[in-house]
Amino acid sequence: MERQDHDLAFMLKYENVAWYEDNAVRILDRRIYPARIEYVTCSTYAEVIEAIRTMVTQSGGPYIAAAMGMALAARQLSAGGGDFEAGIRKASRELSHARPTTAEKMSAITEACVDVALAAKAAGKAPDEAIFFNNIEVVNRRYARSAATAVHLVNQFPDNATVMTQCFAETVVGMMLRECRSRGKTIKVICPETRPYFQGARLTASVVHDMGFDVTVITDNMPGYTMKAKKVDVFTSAADVICMDGHIVNKVGTFQIALAARYWGIPYFVTGTPNREHPTIDTVKIEERAEKDVLEAMGVRTAMEGVHGFYPAFDITPPKLCDGVVTDKGIFSPYDLYAYY
Amino acid sequence: MERQDHDLAFMLKYENVAWYEDNAVRILDRRIYPARIEYVTCSTYAEVIEAIRTMVTQSGGPYIAAAMGMALAARQLSAGGGDFEAGIRKASRELSHARPTTAEKMSAITEACVDVALAAKAAGKAPDEAIFFNNIEVVNRRYARSAATAVHLVNQFPDNATVMTQCFAETVVGMMLRECRSRGKTIKVICPETRPYFQGARLTASVVHDMGFDVTVITDNMPGYTMKAKKVDVFTSAADVICMDGHIVNKVGTFQIALAARYWGIPYFVTGTPNREHPTIDTVKIEERAEKDVLEAMGVRTAMEGVHGFYPAFDITPPKLCDGVVTDKGIFSPYDLYAYY
Repeated sequence: MERQDHDLAFMLKYENVAWYEDNAVRILDRRIYPARIEYVTCSTYAEVIEAIRTMVTQSGGPYIAAAMGMALAARQLSAGGGDFEAGIRKASRELSHARPTTAEKMSAITEACVDVALAAKAAGKAPDEAIFFNNIEVVNRRYARSAATAVHLVNQFPDNATVMTQCFAETVVGMMLRECRSRGKTIKVICPETRPYFQGARLTASVVHDMGFDVTVITDNMPGYTMKAKKVDVFTSAADVICMDGHIVNKVGTFQIALAARYWGIPYFVTGTPNREHPTIDTVKIEERAEKDVLEAMGVRTAMEGVHGFYPAFDITPPKLCDGVVTDKGIFSPYDLYAYY
Repeated sequence: MERQDHDLAFMLKYENVAWYEDNAVRILDRRIYPARIEYVTCSTYAEVIEAIRTMVTQSGGPYIAAAMGMALAARQLSAGGGDFEAGIRKASRELSHARPTTAEKMSAITEACVDVALAAKAAGKAPDEAIFFNNIEVVNRRYARSAATAVHLVNQFPDNATVMTQCFAETVVGMMLRECRSRGKTIKVICPETRPYFQGARLTASVVHDMGFDVTVITDNMPGYTMKAKKVDVFTSAADVICMDGHIVNKVGTFQIALAARYWGIPYFVTGTPNREHPTIDTVKIEERAEKDVLEAMGVRTAMEGVHGFYPAFDITPPKLCDGVVTDKGIFSPYDLYAYY
């Protein structure tokens, strides 16, 4: 934890912002970002559930939205005068189940909020504020890990580095750029657009541009050529899963870019925490999503009716194509990840 | 020239159809294909120029459109009664310069039409019909080469093959499928969509589907994973240039797919004719196109204003990643292409 001077409000701007203030939860509308920067304001926790359900916020965003929604629920219940404990437990169940696939992970978060609220209430404190400040603490701990990871990653960048990314590495992107700026390091970033949802073009490129760095978008068939043409120094991505045997599961396309990086002699660093629940790649199931998502782009159909689509959401990069697993504790060999623990 | 039984009208349907009939040139509107199948009908050669200029037809299509436009010009001039030779030479200049970058190659075609027209006129024959039938001859010769190439390519497919393509290989795709059908070979085709213009999703997938074969579109970040997941047997592409030293210049993305194919032990066959005007890769300049094309998809902007784009139209696949150059005369090693001549 080398750096604690992160600016929460500043960083949240670049995430799936959800914020509790003035008896409402305000959520950045990721469905239209970055074409327009607009917020959905929820004045009841039922509206937060609806916002999560209708994909107003995405990837890491729903977790923050649900946690902030718990603060709002606590506020509603305090004002309402009914059975607070029954009410807050109900809110936890409902918020965590706004989307079925993330319910388990989200329950852990909203149930922690229940505990915080009940403890605050027992101590005669405002439960909504207690939840809100606890949320900030949780996010801060994540930011601290991200900031520490960014230090180790940026150590690997030469001066005037050109860095290629993949998809959207969330907090790590912002922290990486912040670390570069604090050291006076100039970097250029090249973002493959990341089909089918264009997270590279829409999210990563926006963060980089907003933070004042030079950023270039390419389509997903261009990384191999561009690495050579634009003299890319480093390829880096986050990961959905880093198996203990060094296999990396990340947004589809990562494998191809890692392969091209190896061909050109460019190092590939993955950021994240090794996942002990996956000792080997064999326990990971690669999710396949709706065909139609690959048969359209930005909502416009590309292929004829009758043509099939195949949409593996992730791919697998073997340890031999990875030059290092960059964590908050330093850089580990993909062949020795138990050393992290 | 093993096979001469090709059906011109049938094949043209799958190309950038331009046809001269009833004193008009009818051009398939590639700008909206395959969402809708519509034709632009030009009743003067000036309208053909306008159609070429405004991208009604694309890739190989403008050459056929210009040649058919010459037949129409000859018809107009025959009816008009002015100086036929001056008029047809003017039409040749104008049609060939409908787009600046292709003027040189197109002039060779339209000037050949001038010769045909003048010879017909001298022999007391209708110059428009002479041009039209000459065009058919030219296309037929190309089709015969394509059909012969397809025979050699399909020889490399195992039974029930899964074949991955890249971009749109024009005539070769149709001929390959026709050859499979005539042998009773079942194949499945997987088409990367080929950003930024989606030729794989829009054109190749449509041809394959129209011809009754199973076809699946994936986005351009998926070939590496999909090769393994869907047990791809062969990767094949056409080429814009096959240098005599074995370097292949083709639609950007080909290199990455070839690299992944090599990783998985899948052969990569390129179809085409070695280009003697490029003894080595050093004489090829990789064209860069408009930034904005990679910053939008199907006409919808993906990235924030201020974000740059980089659009190399082609990439370079080295001979060591190519398993064979498939031509009308057989399959050649990329290391011995002078053997073709």
